[in-house]
Amino acid sequence: MILPTAEIVCLGNELLIGVTINTNGAFIGEKLTKLGYEVRRTTCIRDNLELASAFLKEVFTRKPDVIIVSGGLGPTYDDIQIEVLGKALEVPLIENEQALNQLEEYYGRWNFKLSKERRKMALFPKGATILNNRVGGAPGCHLRYDEMDIFSVPGVPTEMEDILLNHIIPILGKKVENSLFELKFQILNCSESEIASCINDVKTHFPDLYIKSHPAYKDKMGIVIHLSGYGETAESNIYKAKEELTKLFKIKAPSLIIKDFKD
Amino acid sequence: MILPTAEIVCLGNELLIGVTINTNGAFIGEKLTKLGYEVRRTTCIRDNLELASAFLKEVFTRKPDVIIVSGGLGPTYDDIQIEVLGKALEVPLIENEQALNQLEEYYGRWNFKLSKERRKMALFPKGATILNNRVGGAPGCHLRYDEMDIFSVPGVPTEMEDILLNHIIPILGKKVENSLFELKFQILNCSESEIASCINDVKTHFPDLYIKSHPAYKDKMGIVIHLSGYGETAESNIYKAKEELTKLFKIKAPSLIIKDFKD
Repeated sequence: MILPTAEIVCLGNELLIGVTINTNGAFIGEKLTKLGYEVRRTTCIRDNLELASAFLKEVFTRKPDVIIVSGGLGPTYDDIQIEVLGKALEVPLIENEQALNQLEEYYGRWNFKLSKERRKMALFPKGATILNNRVGGAPGCHLRYDEMDIFSVPGVPTEMEDILLNHIIPILGKKVENSLFELKFQILNCSESEIASCINDVKTHFPDLYIKSHPAYKDKMGIVIHLSGYGETAESNIYKAKEELTKLFKIKAPSLIIKDFKD
Repeated sequence: MILPTAEIVCLGNELLIGVTINTNGAFIGEKLTKLGYEVRRTTCIRDNLELASAFLKEVFTRKPDVIIVSGGLGPTYDDIQIEVLGKALEVPLIENEQALNQLEEYYGRWNFKLSKERRKMALFPKGATILNNRVGGAPGCHLRYDEMDIFSVPGVPTEMEDILLNHIIPILGKKVENSLFELKFQILNCSESEIASCINDVKTHFPDLYIKSHPAYKDKMGIVIHLSGYGETAESNIYKAKEELTKLFKIKAPSLIIKDFKD
């Protein structure tokens, strides 16, 4: 099954120097995957206008259906996402009235004036549709370019999540046909290399499914087996694959314990 | 100051679909940054031989001094890092005796035999130097190619950390001259946009320093200010910049509270 593709771009030195763990990439990746997109790359890049705009032009040549750019929408000198987008898209930046109204309303709650630094967050590439931010100051935006949907979101996780869930997912939801079906279970009392051949075998019977063993899955003990797929047959195939896997696992490792779980 | 550059490549669908948060990228990024490297990009890519090897060839054209590839060294069908490296470097894979010995020793602890799936972890691109893994099965490796240092490490964090800290950092430590000096402090009772102009001003006096405000820094309240730099003058400049910042902050937001902290 050919899925529409997506790339996630996370802008910010803090991600590259290890001050911030890129939870945004995982959050956005999970939502896009569940919606029916194949996330091809997640890239963290530096707050450098030349490097970042050249990188975005490079992404455009790969023509993913969706590009989500997170980070760098704030008020400080290194918040350069909008400049990067303008340079990569070769369009001028324009002060957007809807964004200005949102910023005035947001900072007005504390009787703060729109200083130069706050007003900067109302600048957007020409042609952008504003996506209001209900959690913080900086609005996001949506751009269409060369048949791609480009979305711009803040780097602060709560603000990114608000714009992603309330604006972006509903827009993209209308464009995709296949959502994801998935199942996870946990196995204890065995090593990954012991059951690797079982997974390899079952995978050949279900080439369209993603079957993956995770020896280090969050805080879970043992190994987590993750099955997922798209389309009408995914659900029934996943149950069949699970049955085959558990049979083979018990032959390879008779003392193995199987546990269902929810994330 | 021109620093040697690095790219981090994290291989694994689980990173793109949001099942795993990419803590490895942050860990490796932090260690390389402290050592004196500018980490230019961290990219998560899929377990797809064609896409991943094409991606690595693309990295080679940028000629970073160091490339660290993490993930995909295990025993399952989708653990394809070594194949990806071989294809990108256009060199054959060879069973490595040192790696085979390490695997025999590791699995021997439980009287496990070297099955086909375990033996696969002894395959390496021709010319690779093996980096022993003391925590798990799969060894890492070091390759020199077109004046770049390429290091291959597992995706399981404890195994990656062992190889990075015990093999890679000592090798790279001999190649760099400038290590990082940094300082963080916390400010409470103000918003980021309130103090943005102070940071912009001070940044112009210290163009070589990295000065960054983090409105969402780990579990910290308020805003964390992070200053860092390389070279002989970094330490004294950072203290001067902090002094300038705190003076300006107190003018802009008189009720602001400043707190020192350690990570």
